[in-house]
Parts: sequence; structure tokens; C-alpha cells
Amino acid sequence: MTQTTTTTNASLEQAAREQDLTDRVVASFDRCENPRLKQVMQSLTRHLHAFVRDVRLTEEEWNTAIAFLTDAGHITDERRQEFILLSDVLGASMQTIAVNNEAYKNATEATVFGPFFVADAPEIPRGGDIAGGAHGTPCWVEGTVTDTEGNVVPNARIEVWEADDDGFYDVQYDDGRIAGRAWLPSDEEGRYSFWGLTPTPYPIPHDGPVGKMLDSVGRSPVRAAHLHFMVTAPGYRTLVTHIFVEGDPQLEIGDSVFGVKDSLIKRFEDQAPGTPTPDGRDLGDQAWARTRFDIVLAPEIR
Amino acid sequence: MTQTTTTTNASLEQAAREQDLTDRVVASFDRCENPRLKQVMQSLTRHLHAFVRDVRLTEEEWNTAIAFLTDAGHITDERRQEFILLSDVLGASMQTIAVNNEAYKNATEATVFGPFFVADAPEIPRGGDIAGGAHGTPCWVEGTVTDTEGNVVPNARIEVWEADDDGFYDVQYDDGRIAGRAWLPSDEEGRYSFWGLTPTPYPIPHDGPVGKMLDSVGRSPVRAAHLHFMVTAPGYRTLVTHIFVEGDPQLEIGDSVFGVKDSLIKRFEDQAPGTPTPDGRDLGDQAWARTRFDIVLAPEIR
Repeated sequence: MTQTTTTTNASLEQAAREQDLTDRVVASFDRCENPRLKQVMQSLTRHLHAFVRDVRLTEEEWNTAIAFLTDAGHITDERRQEFILLSDVLGASMQTIAVNNEAYKNATEATVFGPFFVADAPEIPRGGDIAGGAHGTPCWVEGTVTDTEGNVVPNARIEVWEADDDGFYDVQYDDGRIAGRAWLPSDEEGRYSFWGLTPTPYPIPHDGPVGKMLDSVGRSPVRAAHLHFMVTAPGYRTLVTHIFVEGDPQLEIGDSVFGVKDSLIKRFEDQAPGTPTPDGRDLGDQAWARTRFDIVLAPEIR
Repeated sequence: MTQTTTTTNASLEQAAREQDLTDRVVASFDRCENPRLKQVMQSLTRHLHAFVRDVRLTEEEWNTAIAFLTDAGHITDERRQEFILLSDVLGASMQTIAVNNEAYKNATEATVFGPFFVADAPEIPRGGDIAGGAHGTPCWVEGTVTDTEGNVVPNARIEVWEADDDGFYDVQYDDGRIAGRAWLPSDEEGRYSFWGLTPTPYPIPHDGPVGKMLDSVGRSPVRAAHLHFMVTAPGYRTLVTHIFVEGDPQLEIGDSVFGVKDSLIKRFEDQAPGTPTPDGRDLGDQAWARTRFDIVLAPEIR
């Protein structure tokens, strides 16, 4: 390729000019009075320039990048956030999660938050149903909340949310419904359980510039099936995570936002219609599933 | 700072998790059938992830970045391009120019194109006036166009454009005026000359998110005074450049888009009112200036 040849042939004089430019841009932030902002902007400058130099970005490619960002800005509104999608599909969201949720003993791993959390979801009792009318295969979810020493964590606030089996969250409908989301506390022995829906794979919104980009590089926009959790308890690091469904073919194809971690893939056991339910609920002739997710919280960083 | 401490303390397990994530995102582009696109996206991924990891980007900072890009998208329209401004003030535009216009012998150096070029500017004769009614101090500009061996380049197309002394280009006014821009050919001995305006410093549009960013890091939005040139001739690399004004205080403060190169700073000699002009033009009691810019074109890359 021309670009590679060019890189190889770049003279010392040329390399010096390019490095001098980077140095001047970095130095332009020297007067920044906020040391953290200065650090971030200088690092951003170094990495951005290294990218342009490494690939020998052409002026046409630069124009394409400007047009891409412009299109992303114009499709973004209160209901659609293309820049979050971009960050997600480049793994930048997941990397940000990673650096802010460092590995700690056997604590449950974190994953992406996503754009579909709602702060004021209804509370349900232990064993309650989060579906709120959302369609899907009922799924009994149970587990415990403990610390990394195995001590139970009572009264942890467990928020759960998920898409229906058409692949949409309640907030993606126009009718103001609240469905597929709720919160419940762990009990005095750290236990929790609820009825949700067996998660199904769905695509991220892919009718915009990010979707076009995924298409042009041969990537799937589909997320592996998952159920969202956010668990908070005083003295513990807030856990934002999902559980994934063992055997979901999308796990092989690849989750479009790189949220999957092996430790978060759980067995969902299919139950034939008529199989007695854990809480005696009568599901008639409907099949159901069950899974277990034991949550381990890391201590809060002081 | 917390971030530095965190980086230092990151366990091997943590570093392995972060690297594994980057590797997975890079691998997600493996199926891309366009080898250049694949190269660009994989390099972008590596540098973006390295940035997030190096600064230990916080989730709050990530939110700020998403909001910044969203604001930039929403202020951008046919007349305002905030993403180009962003690229400019981060030096990414200038670095792209640099890698596409490699140093070649004594060829004149390139600099940023800017957003104010217009393709169908009027032609003027040798010694003609580009002002078209724009206000400013008249300035006689002359020079030659040669190749790097010193051979004259006749009939090169020389496009020139500049802001008026209020700091605005014609296209920034609503009235459709054409002013401060023209093109002329070099003559059979490679010579050119025209009347322009002595350039004055002006700020890039700074009432949007890029302006706020510059303010928060203590940087000036002002561009060093300059006059734009684009020179094309068959068999030669197109030259996009400016000349800058020796003694302009903004050269010390720093050009906001990093376009300055020492070789492009020219002496503009102030002439008292009544000083005879090179072409006998009568400027009455008006002061004027003169400068010289000898242009050296690199051969076209084949």
C-alpha cells in the first residue's frame, strides 16, 4: 500500500516536522490551570496525532471522518445517542468501564451500562415479576449478594432491566409504558429472586452512521442476549453488569459492544410447560426458564 | 492524583483484562474486506483504547466527552463546522496536512486549508486587486513560482484568499459578496503580483463547544494573521499554504490551529502615504505595505 511505503520512506526531516507539530500542540495546553484537564488533553493530542501518523491518514479520509461525525451529530437527539453507540462499538465504553472497575478478588465483573436505564423503576417484592406486560418467556432469576469474604449483604438495592422479545426496551416505545424493569432489595440472608423474561439478542440502532460503519467492516450490530443489573449497597462499589445466556449463538458471532465476560455467561435452564415453579406460580401451558446469578460486591474505594 | 496511583497499582490481572478487551475489538475488524479501512479502524481502536487506559478516563469524563461531541454536532450546519474546528485546534488537521505533504528539498511548506476557500473566485490580471471592496490596508504581493531545481513554472494557477480587517471572509457575510479572493496565473517567467490586504489576526468561531474548551484550558482562539495561497500546475504537487506576517504578536502567543511554519513568515514592509507604488497605482493619502513570497513547487508523486 502507498501508505506503508510512505511511512517507510518518511525522511528524518519529515519525522522531525511531524513530531515538532505534536510537541507544539501538547505544549499549547501547558497553561491549563486544571491539572487533570491538562493531562487528559495532552494525552488525547498525543494519541490522536500518533493515529494520524501511523496510518498516514489521507485528506480524503480526514474528510470522511468529519462527515461521519457530522452525520452522527445530526442523528443524535433526546431519544437517540449516536456518539454513545460509536463509543460502544469501538469498545471505548467497555474500556472506560474496565479502568473504573478494576479486578478485585472474586468480585463480580462489571459491564456496559447502556442507554436504557431508568432511575425511578417500580419496586417489586421478593419473587415479584418485572415484566409489566412485556412479552417473552418467563424466567425465574435467583441468587445471593455477598462480599468478597463470603459475608451476606442484606438490603442491597438490585435494579434489573431488559428488552422484550421483540428486542425493545419500554422506553423505546412511544406510549410511556413501564415494563421489563424493577428494583428489589436483597433479604436478611442476602438472597433475591424475581420473575423476568429470558433475554433474546437484539441489534443496537443501526440505521445511522454507526450502523453503516459496522456494515462496511462486516460486523454484526447485534448484542448478545442479556439481562441488566445494577447493585448498590452502602460501603460497596456500585456494580453495573449483565448476565448473558449460555448457548446464545451471538456469543460466538460477537457482542456488538464487547460487553461479554466469561464469568457473566449463565446457564438458563429451559422448563417444559407444567413444570412446577419455585414459588408455586401457575404458568398454565407456558414454558419457562430459570437461572442463578450470585453477586459478589467489591468494597468501596476510599 | 488518584488516576496515576490507580495506573501504578493496576494488577497484572487488571492489565490483562484491559489488553484482552482491546485485542477483541481489534479482532472484530478482521473480517473487513477493505484492507485500508481495516487498517484505519484497527489503528483507531488501539490508539483510542491506549488513551482511555493511559489517563484512566473516569465515567464522568466519558460523559463529558459524549456531551461535547453532541453539542459540536448540534451547532454544526452548512455555515458552521465545529468538527473541523475541533480537528484544527487539536492540530489533527495540520498533522494530516503534514503526512500528506512530506518535506521535499526546498519546496514551499504546506499548511491548513481552512473552511473559507471558494472554487469559483474571479480571475484577475497580473498586478490586479483581489480586495473587491473588502476593507484593509492595501498590500502589494509579488514573487515567482519555480520548481525545486530553480526552473520557472509559467502559467501556474495561483488562488489567494483572506479575511478583511474585521476578521471576516466574504462567505461569512450574508449578502453574497465576493471579496478578498481571486486567482491569477504566473507569467512566462514564473512571476506573479497582485494587490491584496495586509492580513490581520482574527479568532476562529469560538462561541461553541470548541471555544469553551479553548477557554477552559487557557488557549487563545486567535489565528495569526495570514494570507491563503493554493498553487496548482501540471506535474507538480498542489501547494496549499499561507504566508504569515513577521512581527505579528499572535505568532508568539500561538496560532490557534498550529498553521505557522518559520519558512512561511514573511516581512511585510509598511509604506508611508505617498510612497510610489510598484505599478504606479495612486493610493492617495493611504498607507500601504509590500511583501514577497517566492513559491517552490514539489514534483507530483506518481
